[in-house]
Amino acid sequence: MKTRNIRLTVEYDGTAYSGWQKQAQAETVQGTLENRLQHVCGHPVDLLVAGRTDAGVHGLGQTANFHTSSNLPVAKIQDVLNRLLPHDIRIVKAQVVPDTFHATYHAKGKLYRYVIRNSADYTVFDRNTYHHVRPLLNVAAMRKAAKYLVGTHDFTAFRGTLGKKANPKRTIHKIQIKTQGKDIVLEYTGVSFLHQMIRILSGTLMYVGLGKLRPEDIRQILKSKDRKKAGPTLPPTGLFLVEVFYPTKFPKIKKWVKEEAE
Amino acid sequence: MKTRNIRLTVEYDGTAYSGWQKQAQAETVQGTLENRLQHVCGHPVDLLVAGRTDAGVHGLGQTANFHTSSNLPVAKIQDVLNRLLPHDIRIVKAQVVPDTFHATYHAKGKLYRYVIRNSADYTVFDRNTYHHVRPLLNVAAMRKAAKYLVGTHDFTAFRGTLGKKANPKRTIHKIQIKTQGKDIVLEYTGVSFLHQMIRILSGTLMYVGLGKLRPEDIRQILKSKDRKKAGPTLPPTGLFLVEVFYPTKFPKIKKWVKEEAE
Repeated sequence: MKTRNIRLTVEYDGTAYSGWQKQAQAETVQGTLENRLQHVCGHPVDLLVAGRTDAGVHGLGQTANFHTSSNLPVAKIQDVLNRLLPHDIRIVKAQVVPDTFHATYHAKGKLYRYVIRNSADYTVFDRNTYHHVRPLLNVAAMRKAAKYLVGTHDFTAFRGTLGKKANPKRTIHKIQIKTQGKDIVLEYTGVSFLHQMIRILSGTLMYVGLGKLRPEDIRQILKSKDRKKAGPTLPPTGLFLVEVFYPTKFPKIKKWVKEEAE
Repeated sequence: MKTRNIRLTVEYDGTAYSGWQKQAQAETVQGTLENRLQHVCGHPVDLLVAGRTDAGVHGLGQTANFHTSSNLPVAKIQDVLNRLLPHDIRIVKAQVVPDTFHATYHAKGKLYRYVIRNSADYTVFDRNTYHHVRPLLNVAAMRKAAKYLVGTHDFTAFRGTLGKKANPKRTIHKIQIKTQGKDIVLEYTGVSFLHQMIRILSGTLMYVGLGKLRPEDIRQILKSKDRKKAGPTLPPTGLFLVEVFYPTKFPKIKKWVKEEAE
């Protein structure tokens, strides 16, 4: 039977979900999507995903793919899916891709964003899309500190409680810290990240912004491989998986190792 | 015992609440506030309110007052309250007012806002703060129709399912229709409104914008006193109680009649 490989670009507000990955007893983004996809495609669907985001973390350009024997046009699949999905999950794009494409394995990089609302004032309406910090942060010091993090390092000091098996050596290509109105927006581009790494990196940079750490302390924290030396794990509300980068060609996959959740 | 009368300006995201008014079996804004106020003041508190908003309706400048024997400074009450309250309710302002001030009785006018996101595109993040309409609305026609609604009329055709007892004669001082990016923002200023009146007015103006009604049909709809002739009751997500207007003096209240919920 002829099957197609379909790639989805997914936006979601993670607030109501226990993360991406399917669980028997909890609402998850994957579980919700696969449930609706089964209705649309007429058969059970297994989603492969670029980044298994943690509970409460948001997706803007999350990328997943699945194989289907349904012959519905892909635009129709997107349309019907968006009508069936709850309002906090949306298919931004659906496209047919080569059979070999694998959303997890072929991801060659990711862009994560952490948003800090740095103001005494706030509103109740967008409260799940940032982390609220009242004292004014020293952005120049945060930018200086970020430079020590870019490159290939052992990030053991910046790793969360789960998944201690993966290699702690990771590469951060770029950290950009922008100010947008009352927000400080931290953007991290890298190949892949350890469990809760972005939230710990952001908590550490926040500590630098508060004057609780000096920019040059980052070097010592990296070297220490001690989680207790780094800053706090910031809440998931401020974290967005913005974009996943893929090469133009997709070689056949023989085996691949699961990445730690973000 | 010396008591003070305290006026609160309250902002809330109504999404999670069964409206303002306290109910035994449901989460409400009033119930949540009175529960936290009891902790802060050390005695049970009865809140008087300007507008008893319906389930899902939001507050920006909702106004309430209560009498307390607590001698905590009012700034402290606000601060502690904001720490105890869930993230979707916020005290914007707390102030001591004359003993005679009554948030319900003295309100001489209200400004309600209804937000229509008029675009094929949308995001999942602010989905509870507007009503989504894809076809492009004719704003000029909506403005023309709004003119027929301003003034004192019998608004029976624009009244919701609850509360048929109050006088259906109401006065709308002003309807302003603004476009802000992808949003059409309808603002209504009046003395007071009938149950779901703003949502039905907005649904009727939306029908005019869609070409399902002509601006001049409004006159006939008012005259008919027939709910079925008007447009649909739009969802509460798009509705905000923006501001409550009070006179500068607060005469003593002898008796007052409960207003219908919005």
